[in-house]
Amino acid sequence: MPYVNIKITREGQSITAEQKAELIAGVTDLLVKVINRGPATTVVVIDEIEMDNYGVGGESITVRRAKGK
Amino acid sequence: MPYVNIKITREGQSITAEQKAELIAGVTDLLVKVINRGPATTVVVIDEIEMDNYGVGGESITVRRAKGK
Amino acid sequence: MPYVNIKITREGQSITAEQKAELIAGVTDLLVKVINRGPATTVVVIDEIEMDNYGVGGESITVRRAKGK
Amino acid sequence: MPYVNIKITREGQSITAEQKAELIAGVTDLLVKVINRGPATTVVVIDEIEMDNYGVGGESITVRRAKGK
Amino acid sequence: MPYVNIKITREGQSITAEQKAELIAGVTDLLVKVINRGPATTVVVIDEIEMDNYGVGGESITVRRAKGK
Amino acid sequence: MPYVNIKITREGQSITAEQKAELIAGVTDLLVKVINRGPATTVVVIDEIEMDNYGVGGESITVRRAKGK
Repeated sequence: MPYVNIKITREGQSITAEQKAELIAGVTDLLVKVINRGPATTVVVIDEIEMDNYGVGGESITVRRAKGK
Repeated sequence: MPYVNIKITREGQSITAEQKAELIAGVTDLLVKVINRGPATTVVVIDEIEMDNYGVGGESITVRRAKGK
Repeated sequence: MPYVNIKITREGQSITAEQKAELIAGVTDLLVKVINRGPATTVVVIDEIEMDNYGVGGESITVRRAKGK
Repeated sequence: MPYVNIKITREGQSITAEQKAELIAGVTDLLVKVINRGPATTVVVIDEIEMDNYGVGGESITVRRAKGK
Repeated sequence: MPYVNIKITREGQSITAEQKAELIAGVTDLLVKVINRGPATTVVVIDEIEMDNYGVGGESITVRRAKGK
Repeated sequence: MPYVNIKITREGQSITAEQKAELIAGVTDLLVKVINRGPATTVVVIDEIEMDNYGVGGESITVRRAKGK
C-alpha cells in the first residue's frame, strides 16, 4: 500500500528507463524490508522537474550548477 | 475549499480535454454531495505521468502493460 | 492505477468513516467511468487539515468561517 | 528545512526564469522571516500545469479564461 | 489560482496561528507581486510534520537537532 | 537535492523512530546509488495516514484489513 513520490531535476542526459525501474523496485523493496508493507499495491511516482523550477537554499538548481554546487 | 490532485499515466492517445473536464466537474460534485464542501473554491489538479515514471508493485506501468497487466 | 489525494479541513464534527468510504469509492468509480482506469490499484488518500493551516484568498479557513464565508 | 510546492498554470507566455527565481527566493525569505526556518536546506518546487488540467469551481482554467474569469 | 503546499516540522512550541496567517498572506501576496496570479482562489496548505518523519541529508530532524544542525 | 514523500498507514503499533530513520537513510542512499543525486540536500517526508483515510481498490485500508487483505 505505501505511496512514494520522488522529485528529481531533469539535467543534461535524462534519467534512463533502467534507472527509473531501479528506483521503483528499490524503494518498493525498502518498504517491504523495513516496515513489511506492500509490495503488490505499492505505488511509486517519479516527477522530473526543470532545473529552473527546483530551488534549494533560495537559488534554482540552474544557478547552483553554474556555481559548481 | 477542498483540494484534489489526480495522477494518471499518459498512455497512447492522451486523455482528452473533455475527459479532463468530466474529472474536474465529477470530483467537485462528489465533494459537494458527500461532505457539502465547495464548490466555488474547490481546486482540482490533474498530473499526467509518463508510463516509465509510474510504478505499481515494483514495476513501471510500461513493464506492466507489456505483460498485459 | 490512478492516485488521488484529497485535502479537506477538519471542522467541528469530523468527516465520518462512512463519508470517507463514500469519497474513496466515488472517486475510484469516477476514474473508471470517465477514463477507464483502475480500479484494482487505484489509491485514494484523504488529508484532514486544521482550519488554521488551510488558506484561501490569503486568509485561513478559521478567519473565513468567522466572516461567514 | 521547509519544503514548498507551488502549482501554477502555464498560460500564453510562460513564467520566466527570472520570475521563478523571485518565487524561490521570496518564499525562502518569507519562511526565514516568519518562522525562522531554513534557508540552507529549504526546498521549493514549482509545477507548471496545463490549463486543461487545473480546475477551480468545477471548471478548467481554459474554460474560466474563455469566460473572462 | 495558484496552489501552495508548505511542509515544516513541528518543534517545541508550535507555529502559532498568527505565524500561519502570515505565511498564508505572505505567499499569496508574493504570487500576486511576482506573477500576478490570484489572489481570490489562491490556496495555501501548511503541513506540520513530526521531527522523526522529516529527513534531510539522510538523517531525521530529531537527529540533526541533537547534533546542533 | 531529490525530494521524497512516503505515505503509509498508521496501524496498531506505530512505525518506530528507528524504522523511520531506516526509511530516510535507505531512500537517501538509493538515490545516490542509482542516479548519483544528493545526499546533502535530499529531503524525505513520511506521512502517516489513518486507515480510514487511505483507500485501495475503492475500499479503505480499515475495510481491507477486516477482509484479511
